[in-house]
Amino acid sequence: MSRPAALSGFPEWSPGQRMVEQAVLDHLRETFERHGFAPLETRAVEPLDQLLRKGETSKEVYLLRRLQAADGGGTGGAGTGDDALGLHFDLTVPFARYVLEHAGTLAFPFRRYQIQKVWRGERPQQGRYREFTQADIDIVDRDTLPFHYDVELPLVILAALGGLPLPPVRVQVNNRKLCEGFYRGIGLADPAQALRAVDALDKIGPVRVADLLAQRAGASPAQAKACLALAGISAPDASFADAVRALGVSDPLLDEGLDELVRVVEAGAAARPGQVRAELKIARGLDYYTGTVYETELVGYERFGSICSGGRYDNLATAGTDRFPGVGISLGVTRVLGLLFGAGALRASREVPTCVLVALPDEASRPECDALAHVLRGRGIATEVSPRADKYGRQLRFAQRRGIPYVWFPPADAGTDGVPRPDATGEVKDIRSGEQRPADPATWQPPAADLRPQVVAGP
Amino acid sequence: MSRPAALSGFPEWSPGQRMVEQAVLDHLRETFERHGFAPLETRAVEPLDQLLRKGETSKEVYLLRRLQAADGGGTGGAGTGDDALGLHFDLTVPFARYVLEHAGTLAFPFRRYQIQKVWRGERPQQGRYREFTQADIDIVDRDTLPFHYDVELPLVILAALGGLPLPPVRVQVNNRKLCEGFYRGIGLADPAQALRAVDALDKIGPVRVADLLAQRAGASPAQAKACLALAGISAPDASFADAVRALGVSDPLLDEGLDELVRVVEAGAAARPGQVRAELKIARGLDYYTGTVYETELVGYERFGSICSGGRYDNLATAGTDRFPGVGISLGVTRVLGLLFGAGALRASREVPTCVLVALPDEASRPECDALAHVLRGRGIATEVSPRADKYGRQLRFAQRRGIPYVWFPPADAGTDGVPRPDATGEVKDIRSGEQRPADPATWQPPAADLRPQVVAGP
Repeated sequence: MSRPAALSGFPEWSPGQRMVEQAVLDHLRETFERHGFAPLETRAVEPLDQLLRKGETSKEVYLLRRLQAADGGGTGGAGTGDDALGLHFDLTVPFARYVLEHAGTLAFPFRRYQIQKVWRGERPQQGRYREFTQADIDIVDRDTLPFHYDVELPLVILAALGGLPLPPVRVQVNNRKLCEGFYRGIGLADPAQALRAVDALDKIGPVRVADLLAQRAGASPAQAKACLALAGISAPDASFADAVRALGVSDPLLDEGLDELVRVVEAGAAARPGQVRAELKIARGLDYYTGTVYETELVGYERFGSICSGGRYDNLATAGTDRFPGVGISLGVTRVLGLLFGAGALRASREVPTCVLVALPDEASRPECDALAHVLRGRGIATEVSPRADKYGRQLRFAQRRGIPYVWFPPADAGTDGVPRPDATGEVKDIRSGEQRPADPATWQPPAADLRPQVVAGP
Repeated sequence: MSRPAALSGFPEWSPGQRMVEQAVLDHLRETFERHGFAPLETRAVEPLDQLLRKGETSKEVYLLRRLQAADGGGTGGAGTGDDALGLHFDLTVPFARYVLEHAGTLAFPFRRYQIQKVWRGERPQQGRYREFTQADIDIVDRDTLPFHYDVELPLVILAALGGLPLPPVRVQVNNRKLCEGFYRGIGLADPAQALRAVDALDKIGPVRVADLLAQRAGASPAQAKACLALAGISAPDASFADAVRALGVSDPLLDEGLDELVRVVEAGAAARPGQVRAELKIARGLDYYTGTVYETELVGYERFGSICSGGRYDNLATAGTDRFPGVGISLGVTRVLGLLFGAGALRASREVPTCVLVALPDEASRPECDALAHVLRGRGIATEVSPRADKYGRQLRFAQRRGIPYVWFPPADAGTDGVPRPDATGEVKDIRSGEQRPADPATWQPPAADLRPQVVAGP
């Protein structure tokens, strides 16, 4: 086999980085569960017709085909028809499918979190992957979903991100009713096209957005100017509403959106001062959002865009007359970690879970060394026994190379009669300080910071 | 959208079942890390040429194709050539690839665990899935791997499985050197074919295995009889070696295999009496094992076959003159859980993580109720606030339906002056006993068994 190579867009963390990721995921899980979100995993694949409901993202789907499929379609997802199977590209569409499938047995409102890999056949670039982990929270209800959940979700995400050694984050909120009402109020016939044009603002700038507004939404120069004026409004509190009203546009949907956005921003300002902002350029290109929309910046890494996005979707999960409106946020876990690993801003304090290496005086002592390790493990202390009875200097380097903080030396001799002395429990060396002292595996305790690898900021 | 349906072979657990799975995975992680295994995740996809090294399983591979791929191959795995991408069907082949790719930076021997989904395009049947989670531990070294790791691995797996509310398990061990040496010793020219024939023993019985031995391995009736006699040997201790020797066959590789198997079984009998057996019919059909092989039965569910398998592979990870022999075991997590869920043998004590529902007297009280929930969550108590200010009877039923054990009633009134009384913290009702008493969110503590959902045996 020739030496294999990395695949662009399919990141693989080192074991130390994976420990950081696990610590992050554990903290997210714990926070979500403390807020009453139940865990869910859906299968990695969905029928193509489910995946294509979002239309615009069809380019990103990976389809599956069995290598040895005899036929071109049918069971097993080997085909390219409606029954073909593709890998999910987000967790919202599969969740909507899950809700419809299990509507008869779920208790509503249904709060769930879902942490899984998703796949997109996009061109890889910094912070954009073909395989990545998302952590989503959503709440869906039957028929109608109370608005207070739109207020709650960003606070849950802030609680989840706040307990991690990450740079501070800022949730930016907007409301599609507000924008669509505004566009209608100024006389634009196709608010969805206007929304898509404004969504490109950070990427292409105001001049080209104005062009897009003219070409795709039929905006006059004055209408385009009004759209850009709206998109320029931003505030950490409800004062944004005055700025919108000062533009002099009137529409019932605009008023409804303003009221909703004020509620989210006011509650955010009260609970998390400075961390929730009204940002009226936020649009979210995908078309299933119907009200509140969220994006999230990592302070100091704004150039990398949103790490955590979502919104209210009133029409995603519908079947016949059944309707399950929802609101959700999705955190791009791989994205955040990739950026921070790349910036040298986050790492594990060591590359292995092991806290103690039991040194091996000779191969014949392995059973006694295994028994010593067993006692330490039983007390929650991660322990390995040395792979070989090398010279102690070499065994110490084995520990050093991995960052294992302690080496346990078993008793040097078992007494002249070959029976271990009752007090012979050996000595423990802290390989950083070099300090070595007698210790009993039944009682010895490392400092809490050494027990498990810690997540630390910095390179 | 029409009502979606389940996909055969792609199981999805309910939130309660997912909580059970998470508890199992947490326990596995914790045990593996206590034994010094570092976590690793590899990408879900591998180039087809890597996946096909195992030859025989090529039928099971799902290939990827981008829906909108303009060309038939090249970057992105859209093709069917050697650079095509397929979903991994196990975690051993990707791990071998990872070791080769990172050999220059890994510290050997390298102990890692890996818990991930894998995919196989097989026909689904009970306990066999197209998408399922495996939990693997492996140890690889450069050039040579000490044999004591073959002894250690089943003990780690037994430690991991022993702490779970599962039926007891039994690790069955054999050694390919023993079998191959035996087959050579009786004069069979193609020991690999003989091994494959014997591997089918439990499925097709001795008569048809004898036929296979004759057809594929050219065995005479006496040779076939000797192979079946060997496969019939089974013991909880080293006595199996006497039974093998009583068959009167002599071969150096047979002796080497006997010595190795004795070491595994004797250490197993000492550490885990009755849980490690020599079982000489175990063969493992896949062809990369070179010595020790493991299978694992769930006692009472033997008819479902092995839930946890592996072995020593000396030649899987090689590139040029570099060679990384390994030994590993893979636990079929989805398989075990699917069997136990199906048998009504395992469940969560409730379907949501929530321990307390804060009842909502009226919508205007939501901020106070949120604040109360915030205090409880800060103390690690999973809390939700009622979705709507329904009548209390209805809110109680909301909790009851989800199995939420406690409902917190905020103070009924805030005093005549509208200022909350300092002692007004409300009352907590245990909805199972109906008992209700005053409580303070800053100090109230539920019993440990109510704090989080528990994994319980039984339906």
